[in-house]
Amino acid sequence: MINDFYKKAIELHKEHHGKIEVISKVKLDNKEALSAAYSPGVAEVVREIAKDESLAYEYTLKRNTVAIVSDGSAILGLGNLGAKASIPVMEGKAAIFKEFAGIDAFPICLDTQDKDEIIKAVKQIAPVFGGINLEDIASPKCFEIEEILRKELDIPVMHDDQWGAATATLAAFINSIKLRGLNKEEVKVVLSGVGAAGVATGRLLISYGAKNIIFCDSKGIIHKGRNDLNKEKLELLNGSCAKVNEGTLEDAIFGTNVFIGLSKPNILTKEMIQKMAEKPIIFALANPDPEVLPSLAYESGAFIVATGRSDYPNQINNSLVFPGAFKGMLDNRISQFNNDVFIKIAEALASYVKDVSAEKILPSMFDRGIAEEVAKLMK
Amino acid sequence: MINDFYKKAIELHKEHHGKIEVISKVKLDNKEALSAAYSPGVAEVVREIAKDESLAYEYTLKRNTVAIVSDGSAILGLGNLGAKASIPVMEGKAAIFKEFAGIDAFPICLDTQDKDEIIKAVKQIAPVFGGINLEDIASPKCFEIEEILRKELDIPVMHDDQWGAATATLAAFINSIKLRGLNKEEVKVVLSGVGAAGVATGRLLISYGAKNIIFCDSKGIIHKGRNDLNKEKLELLNGSCAKVNEGTLEDAIFGTNVFIGLSKPNILTKEMIQKMAEKPIIFALANPDPEVLPSLAYESGAFIVATGRSDYPNQINNSLVFPGAFKGMLDNRISQFNNDVFIKIAEALASYVKDVSAEKILPSMFDRGIAEEVAKLMK
Repeated sequence: MINDFYKKAIELHKEHHGKIEVISKVKLDNKEALSAAYSPGVAEVVREIAKDESLAYEYTLKRNTVAIVSDGSAILGLGNLGAKASIPVMEGKAAIFKEFAGIDAFPICLDTQDKDEIIKAVKQIAPVFGGINLEDIASPKCFEIEEILRKELDIPVMHDDQWGAATATLAAFINSIKLRGLNKEEVKVVLSGVGAAGVATGRLLISYGAKNIIFCDSKGIIHKGRNDLNKEKLELLNGSCAKVNEGTLEDAIFGTNVFIGLSKPNILTKEMIQKMAEKPIIFALANPDPEVLPSLAYESGAFIVATGRSDYPNQINNSLVFPGAFKGMLDNRISQFNNDVFIKIAEALASYVKDVSAEKILPSMFDRGIAEEVAKLMK
Repeated sequence: MINDFYKKAIELHKEHHGKIEVISKVKLDNKEALSAAYSPGVAEVVREIAKDESLAYEYTLKRNTVAIVSDGSAILGLGNLGAKASIPVMEGKAAIFKEFAGIDAFPICLDTQDKDEIIKAVKQIAPVFGGINLEDIASPKCFEIEEILRKELDIPVMHDDQWGAATATLAAFINSIKLRGLNKEEVKVVLSGVGAAGVATGRLLISYGAKNIIFCDSKGIIHKGRNDLNKEKLELLNGSCAKVNEGTLEDAIFGTNVFIGLSKPNILTKEMIQKMAEKPIIFALANPDPEVLPSLAYESGAFIVATGRSDYPNQINNSLVFPGAFKGMLDNRISQFNNDVFIKIAEALASYVKDVSAEKILPSMFDRGIAEEVAKLMK
């Protein structure tokens, strides 16, 4: 089946030579039209923007345009394959931006992987854009790149591998614990995998008010006794009230209500799920192979199971988030993303599902109204 | 009338919020389509390009996409108004690219005016593009930026303010001297104005085979006795066989067949035209006010008069050139622009006019077949 996907994908890309095109919104079929859209009429538009730069939002594409920026250092789950190999992913995102949110997005695939050079390049290309979607940039440089760009640019900046995943996960979390009858202050969470998506998810859960989270990386439980923790892991550790000691994921999971995996295939066993609290919630988000297959999770007593895949119910996917998130930022002219903004988006996504059930904790990304509704609720 | 243009231009830009949009070429309305255009299918496309980067031309937008890059340092004739004020011009060019050549072009307006930073930024954004159109970048830095980018990038780079103007002028020159019964070796030319467009026009005329050209700048005739000449002016002086001495434009014009002005309004008088050889050819290309008004030029005995304006016959405009030039480069996968390429384009443009007359030395830019024909003749 995956081979079939691959064959169809190659055919589609070959046939169309890519997936997006740039078209004119105005007819240019006579001198008058050309004189208004270009020379000499455009000179007046230039002069007006030179006098008041905010008019770029009224008179140009800036108002509704997002750059999708990658250095190709962490493409999908495939690794560091460089700028050119990243183009089809960024182009696909641009197509999704238009189809699902009416946003004009354009791929910027950078021929540098140096942190400071990336920051500088994004700042230099910023004038024409209303927002910056960072994508497939390796951890840990992705954290600092985003942090500095948010400080130094006057347009919203979001690294989707972090916040797309984190926000979709928070939305799923909100509906899941509600359905299970738990509240955010008491629910016990174990989060496995503390890369770009894991760090952002941890930050967002803490900011949302989840108090009791144990974080695990490939070396086991993150605790004060370890001397190999980067600043992001230390921040997460300090943000949680969970009592933690040395131990493995298997130790950590005992008695927890929610497992969130953003880590590796097949690390969650039947025995581990059975050690969790009653009717546990399992988000097994490793792609394409989850931490546990849904069938095994249900067999082991899981109440809700979600994955990153489209071929099981409850897909937790950043595509649910980024079209509406940017639409909300652009339409409402919100200056910058932050935890509060992501929580609003997650709440909007969660509330979009009218008939929440264990098999439907999130909307489908084909619900065309999502971006519109999220943008409305972000006001 | 110009105020009317301005009013309409503001209205048009306000109504549409800019002039271009980015759309998807593929429908994304079900899981299968999304799986082929994006995850998981796109992973295979990524892997193929990682193995062979030339496949970016087959599988992505790179094949047909041009960046229109400006730093806003010399916008139209308005001066240095910065990146944001340049957006409507670059967006207008992008609309023209699509409408007249089917090319997907995107504005990149850079928040730096430093020569080396511009070069670096363009190199860094190059992976996604098949060509680079530099635009409205001030002289003299425009020369070096273009020269270095041509050497260091594997995609065609053209500064349109130089080569669009120069190529359109050469096309007009070819048809004009033919109509007048002169040959390129003998024709005497005076070229007034040695900025970006003037230098390129001089270079192209010399490369085409015009031997006898006198160059004038704001200080008069360019000759060996002057010690204020930059390297571009020295190169032009050395490339011409015209005998020159100290003097003004009025001295230089005596007995010449062709006046080419890329300089200032109203510097060409009736007396000066009457000093030229019989039935002179006048290209008065200063914008929006030409070196001489066509009515006065004809009164003074001119045989052919051309301007940069659309409201007189014989408009010499870079919009005649850049759509077809880039279409030819992209369709024929020509690696880099150079004088030979521009001469081919000029000859293609000149030969496109089937019924050459003193009032029609060039095609109209609304002849929809131009880009197609130029690209075909560039093979």
